[in-house]
Amino acid sequence: MASPLTPLRTRLSEFDSLRRELVEEYFTFLRFPSVSSEAAHRKDVRACAEWVVKFLSDSGFDVELWEGSGEGHEHPTIFASWMKAGPDRPTVLIYNHYDVQPVDPLELWTSPPFEPRLEGEEVFARGAEDNKGQCFYVMAAVRHLLRTTGTLPVNLKLCIEGEEETGSTVLSRLLADKRKELAADYLYVVDVGLHEPTAPAVTLGVRGIQTMTIELRGSRGDLHSGMVGGIVYNPNRALAELLASLYHPDGRVAVEGFYDDVAPISEEERRQLDFSFDTDQFRAMFGAEPNGGENAFAPIERVWIRPTLEINGMNGGYSGDGFKTVIPAVASAKLSCRLVPDQDPARMGALVEKHLRDRVPLGMELQVHIHGAGTAARTPIDAHAVQVAAAALTELFEKPCHFILSGGSIPIAAGLAESSGAELVLIGFGLPDDNIHAPNEHFGVDRVRKGFATMINILERIGAPA
Amino acid sequence: MASPLTPLRTRLSEFDSLRRELVEEYFTFLRFPSVSSEAAHRKDVRACAEWVVKFLSDSGFDVELWEGSGEGHEHPTIFASWMKAGPDRPTVLIYNHYDVQPVDPLELWTSPPFEPRLEGEEVFARGAEDNKGQCFYVMAAVRHLLRTTGTLPVNLKLCIEGEEETGSTVLSRLLADKRKELAADYLYVVDVGLHEPTAPAVTLGVRGIQTMTIELRGSRGDLHSGMVGGIVYNPNRALAELLASLYHPDGRVAVEGFYDDVAPISEEERRQLDFSFDTDQFRAMFGAEPNGGENAFAPIERVWIRPTLEINGMNGGYSGDGFKTVIPAVASAKLSCRLVPDQDPARMGALVEKHLRDRVPLGMELQVHIHGAGTAARTPIDAHAVQVAAAALTELFEKPCHFILSGGSIPIAAGLAESSGAELVLIGFGLPDDNIHAPNEHFGVDRVRKGFATMINILERIGAPA
Repeated sequence: MASPLTPLRTRLSEFDSLRRELVEEYFTFLRFPSVSSEAAHRKDVRACAEWVVKFLSDSGFDVELWEGSGEGHEHPTIFASWMKAGPDRPTVLIYNHYDVQPVDPLELWTSPPFEPRLEGEEVFARGAEDNKGQCFYVMAAVRHLLRTTGTLPVNLKLCIEGEEETGSTVLSRLLADKRKELAADYLYVVDVGLHEPTAPAVTLGVRGIQTMTIELRGSRGDLHSGMVGGIVYNPNRALAELLASLYHPDGRVAVEGFYDDVAPISEEERRQLDFSFDTDQFRAMFGAEPNGGENAFAPIERVWIRPTLEINGMNGGYSGDGFKTVIPAVASAKLSCRLVPDQDPARMGALVEKHLRDRVPLGMELQVHIHGAGTAARTPIDAHAVQVAAAALTELFEKPCHFILSGGSIPIAAGLAESSGAELVLIGFGLPDDNIHAPNEHFGVDRVRKGFATMINILERIGAPA
Repeated sequence: MASPLTPLRTRLSEFDSLRRELVEEYFTFLRFPSVSSEAAHRKDVRACAEWVVKFLSDSGFDVELWEGSGEGHEHPTIFASWMKAGPDRPTVLIYNHYDVQPVDPLELWTSPPFEPRLEGEEVFARGAEDNKGQCFYVMAAVRHLLRTTGTLPVNLKLCIEGEEETGSTVLSRLLADKRKELAADYLYVVDVGLHEPTAPAVTLGVRGIQTMTIELRGSRGDLHSGMVGGIVYNPNRALAELLASLYHPDGRVAVEGFYDDVAPISEEERRQLDFSFDTDQFRAMFGAEPNGGENAFAPIERVWIRPTLEINGMNGGYSGDGFKTVIPAVASAKLSCRLVPDQDPARMGALVEKHLRDRVPLGMELQVHIHGAGTAARTPIDAHAVQVAAAALTELFEKPCHFILSGGSIPIAAGLAESSGAELVLIGFGLPDDNIHAPNEHFGVDRVRKGFATMINILERIGAPA
């Protein structure tokens, strides 16, 4: 017999009485420079993992570290479980990650990225939102329930990854082996957000991703643009031409076959989703026009239900002070495709590579290095996990819940749903202007508070009799 | 009555007996990190200038430092004169520069760029050739004459600049005011080279240059490629498209009016110049195909008698380890035009800027910053200064002299010829594979030796009665 549902506002009050301690712990979590992509931060990533392990062990969880091969940029996944609710109770799996994006360009931060700064309710730090802020309120919520009641309304598994920002190498490899450990009824990926601060929203899917670095070599070493400019084909020119060739003037990606496998979206699905878009608000928020991508689709359609190809980095020759009249030996770029259901990341990477290879100028060498990938994930609106989250958010905001998709990717989400056999849903308290992956990332203590109360409410609702 | 001509091989022997001392002094000169474009090296540039001033004062020259405004990246020009040959003797002006290019990418140097390393006869260091190596043998040659004979066969002025690599701001501004000081009969710009090590060559001209940095801004800050990829126009994409639009597929520059003012080259001029080009040798030297630039012209024509437009730098977003799914707020590029006679650098810069502005996507902001510029210079083959240099080089190499042009630029050369009223010619012992402006720049002590002997021979020939 499950305990009756505690009102969500009671949980908010409980947060308020713990606020000082919780903010201090949240800041400690943020101070670890757990940048998974940079070899220099290897030890910091490990130290951060150990802090999380201690937090969860002290809370009453059984905790394991799932290690990688020890090579390259591999970082451990933290797997914590509390299975004492009994075999007749549902099992919930919650996914978060403790690794963060690199911080550069560092000079654009108004305060050091690993020294959290509180301004009003907002906390400025790398990872403040993505994903330490959201990971923290999950951990704090379940610890609070265990501390105050000695139990949880469900069996609970936490999977907290250290490689979300670098393609989930370790966890992807373990998905097949860890089916038993991961097995659950409901999977909450707590790594997304809301449209606006006061509008409840549950995310029914994320896009997949395929990332790659390309390097175009034109000569053995750098050359002098006076002496051989006009003789050699400048790799910067060749790269600009290759990259420009990836797009049609109307914004469609020009790679052959790029849209072949896009699953159509039904009228029913389209009706359920909130595609509203406020152009003026977008301009005010980002100082940018919403005029990129496929002109034939509305802005939100372009991020939710269409695949995209973006140039995330471009580099060749001299970019420092003043001028240097060099023709670089090599020019490089970083490309990512965001994918929708039914698109296979490996196939998409191969299509882009073929497009580029077909256009490499004579005598130049193209190297393509494929980084992390993940397929898209999408859940039906009537799934129980979705309806429970919607009910909790409706109680929190006292407004009906929206259903949305995310243009972002959580590469592991689809694989984790498959391996665990759980119903997937994505929730979170991120906002579009949190500057995740950018300088001056921030997240509100008020949102840590809402997340804390909402997570408890969700677990209680799942544990409650139908 | 001039002294009889000393055989050039005697001067080579004299160098040999001084070799140890001279190599030591050459290395001292190379150790100053006199990078004129980088603010961090401001004091190093000044220290280097002071070392040159002392060298020339000690040799018997009257030396002045021509200072800039003291703002920005301005560095002094060293002006040294020895006018005791008498008013009936010709006056020779020699131009060199003591500033050097930046060193990055530093990781591609096999030894530190400001710690000269001798490997066989080759000296590896930034500036080993361009232009400290060539400046050094000029200074050593004239000091040797003054030390051993107490006199020079001509009145001599040395103009040694500290801003050749950044557009000659100070010296350009002074050209009008310093006509009296610079006045000369012959101007030797000792900052060029030979086709191959054993083929004597005199350079009849250099190309002009116009350099610029362009910045394309799409949003206030960096954005997340999942959240807004497909909504905003990625500045990396826009920049790639802008840069690609600068060229026709056949290599012609697509900027309207780019070739309008190109002075035609006569059949007579064409006959006098050595346009020979060895494709296999080029491939072996640079590991690159000679397939860039205007397909309608032969390789050497493209660097000597045609203007070019090169992308010297390109930068936007993340280029570090791993991957970062960012859409950068700004993408930037560095562009340079090399110009031939009758092309005005300012007009050419304006044409390129107009081409770009006409193509900037809606809502993006383009900033164009024009750096240094200089017009092209060309001298007739029958000029006395040319014939004297050719005679000296023929004596050195015991082969007939070639006449060539340089694809490089010495922005100040044309202005200096105009201001001094002197006949301009360009000489030097650089070679195409010296890696100037690139990692592992090098120059041979054997070439310092040849330069030393040749400079003395040239001055003696000019001083000799006709």
